[in-house]
Parts: sequence; C-alpha cells; structure tokens
Amino acid sequence: MQGTLPPASEPTAYTPTDRTVPTRSAQRASYDRELVHAILDEGYVCHLGFVRDGAPVVLPTLYGRVGERLYVHGSTGSRPLRMTGQAGPGLAVCLTVTHVDGLVLARSAFHHSINYRSVVVHGIAHQVTDPEERRTALNALVDHVVPGRSADSRPANTKELAATAVIRLDLEEVSAKVRTGGVSDEPEDLALPHWAGVIPVSRRYGAPLADAALTPGTALPEYLAAL
Amino acid sequence: MQGTLPPASEPTAYTPTDRTVPTRSAQRASYDRELVHAILDEGYVCHLGFVRDGAPVVLPTLYGRVGERLYVHGSTGSRPLRMTGQAGPGLAVCLTVTHVDGLVLARSAFHHSINYRSVVVHGIAHQVTDPEERRTALNALVDHVVPGRSADSRPANTKELAATAVIRLDLEEVSAKVRTGGVSDEPEDLALPHWAGVIPVSRRYGAPLADAALTPGTALPEYLAAL
Repeated sequence: MQGTLPPASEPTAYTPTDRTVPTRSAQRASYDRELVHAILDEGYVCHLGFVRDGAPVVLPTLYGRVGERLYVHGSTGSRPLRMTGQAGPGLAVCLTVTHVDGLVLARSAFHHSINYRSVVVHGIAHQVTDPEERRTALNALVDHVVPGRSADSRPANTKELAATAVIRLDLEEVSAKVRTGGVSDEPEDLALPHWAGVIPVSRRYGAPLADAALTPGTALPEYLAAL
Repeated sequence: MQGTLPPASEPTAYTPTDRTVPTRSAQRASYDRELVHAILDEGYVCHLGFVRDGAPVVLPTLYGRVGERLYVHGSTGSRPLRMTGQAGPGLAVCLTVTHVDGLVLARSAFHHSINYRSVVVHGIAHQVTDPEERRTALNALVDHVVPGRSADSRPANTKELAATAVIRLDLEEVSAKVRTGGVSDEPEDLALPHWAGVIPVSRRYGAPLADAALTPGTALPEYLAAL
C-alpha cells in the first residue's frame, strides 16, 4: 500500500495547547503528525474518558482512524454514545492510546520506568449521521483491528446499522509521549549489585482458532496468516 | 507465596452501583472480588481519568495493589497528583485496566469483537502522607511490574521520597467486564465463505537487554528469567 502525503496546507505537527503540554517530562512530548498517526495505527483499543454527573468515566473501546478523524462506535443504547446526542453540542472526551514497549529496571527503585508510546486526544465527540461517513468509519474500525478484514466480511445490514452509533473525534488537540532507551541510574548507584536493563514487551498473536461451524475447506486468509 | 483470605467481614463481591452496572452487555459484568484482583494483578499500566476545568483527562500510569487499595505515584509536580492536594477533599478519578485476550473475527462486520478483561474503579483519590504506607505503596508499584523486584533494588532515599507523590484509591465502587469465547454470528451467515474464529492475543517479553554499565558478572535474577 502506498502512503499518502497530507494536503499542502496541512502542517506536519499539531499545535500544542495548554492541556497538551505536559507539566512533567516535557522532552518526551511530541506533536509530530506522522508519529501520532503511527502510534494510533498500531493499536485498536483506546481508553475513552468523559464526564458523567461531574465525575470522570474511562472505558476501553475500539477505535479507527481515517485521516485526521478518529471514530468510535457502539450500541445506540450505550452511555457515552447516547450522551453525544443526535445533534447538539457533542460530548467532551479524552481518547488515549498506549503501547508498552519495555520494562526499565534500574538499580534504584526510584528510576524504574516503562518504555511506552502514547497518544492523548482532547476534543468534542460528535455523532456521525451521514450514511457514507458511517460506512467508512465502520470499515475503518474493523480494518484497524485486522487490516483488510472489512472487505472479507458481510457488511452491516440496515438493521445492524440502525443499532450502531458512530462518533467522531477530530485530531486537533493532540500530543504523543514516548519513552525509549535504557536505564537512567544515578552515577553513584552504578556499582550496586542489582541487575539493570530493559525487558522488551510486545504483543503476540497466537495460532488462529477456527470457529467450530466454519465451512470445511475455508482457508485462513493471507492477511491473518501475516499476523 | 501463600494467598491470604480476606477478613471474615469482607464480602466476596463488590456492591454494584448505578455507575458500575453497564447499560450494555450486562452479562459480561462481574463484581467478584477475586476476579477483580486477578485482572488488576496481571497488569501494571492503568488509564487514570480525572476532570480538569470541566473536561476529562485520561493518562496512562503505573499502579500497584495492596489488598483493597490501589496506589498510583508520580512527581509531586504532576497535574493529577497536585490536584489531589495534600489534604482536602481528594480528586474524583476513574481508574481502568484492560487486557486484550483475542480478536474475534466474525463472518459479519457487525459481530466483530474483542475478547478482553477489564476493571473499572470509581472513587476519590487521596494523597498518602503516612511514611510507612508510602513505602509499602512504592514497593507495590515496583513489584506490580516485576514481582520480587523491590527487594532487589536500592530503596528510595529521602530526596527521592520527597519528590514522589503517592495517591490511594480504595476498591469500593468496582466492576469487571469480561468477554471470552468464540464468534457469535447470525445463523443465516454461517455458510458465508469468510474465515471466522479467534486470534489469541497475549503479552510477550523479549530477551532482557542488560545495561551497558552493568558490573561484569552480574547474573540475571531468577524472577526476571521467569518472565
């Protein structure tokens, strides 16, 4: 698949705002559009935060990206999706995606850390009502989990579409935060006898388990074997 | 290590509340204390939500569990930790932990899903000021990432302790949500030619990368080899 360049008018970085500039470890923060997209595209589960009766709620949910738009879907009866309303002002959300890349084991308890890449998106989520955008979003949600899968499944029918709410969050107020590299112990701790280093962490896919009712002879598609 | 029984007065389940009873997929919800503990103990990164200027904020952070208390730590300068205050009413938070166990690929796009286990904790986070509880919490945070590690590292010194804020969230308003099992396609879709089944997902630890300054001859401890 070929990449696509952003339109000439699109800057290569998001503009930092008061809430996307961290109070701590500012050197780990980035507003680079390509980095943000890459972190988002490697995941499929985000943690979506919203405010209900004045208190925060954080729920794990699937997401998909299409250009500068993130999509989340769910039952029309689910709480955050109902709260965005059919029209109206939308719902203030914070959508966060995190990948853990390594355990950083320092000689000192204090300098223990995690190598990670995360993206935090602030904004107002709106329900998507345009039928074509809804289709695009639902395909993106399936393809985010397994690229190529939406074309190899039965598309949603009218009844299923009616039961599904899709909300959109534009990538405008966005930051990434990344920690990479090794241990940062104090110089006076280097001779301590404790083992120090990094344990890499990654995602592993196991051997596919076929559905018991699968039509005999159905081959595992290439896009799944590639996982 | 031996397990410990909860005190006789402690019920085996958390009491459901308005905000821990889901509006959707209620059959996936559980309030079982052992299940909640098991899900929490398998992870070390949570997504912590709080409200700032009326808007939600969701940040990934490490956590540890000691009995019915969760601990989160950070710099005394970090935003959520500052917001809990030294005394005062505390900070309303929602702490969520999610493990992805599988990709559920149905024949229909609509029935695609994820096998997962998550825990959502609602409550008021308070700063911990008692020196002994702070020590216990910081050890728990290190041991949550790698069991046994806190005893094999230099404990925090006075300066490091002064720079570290610890907040506590009691496990009271808690729910787990779990999806397991296979594909739930519509009967009329079973003959479709699309492959259907589950792709297991798990966490993989790579070979440990020793710090370049490691004292020659320092062996990899057993608790790390066991990962």
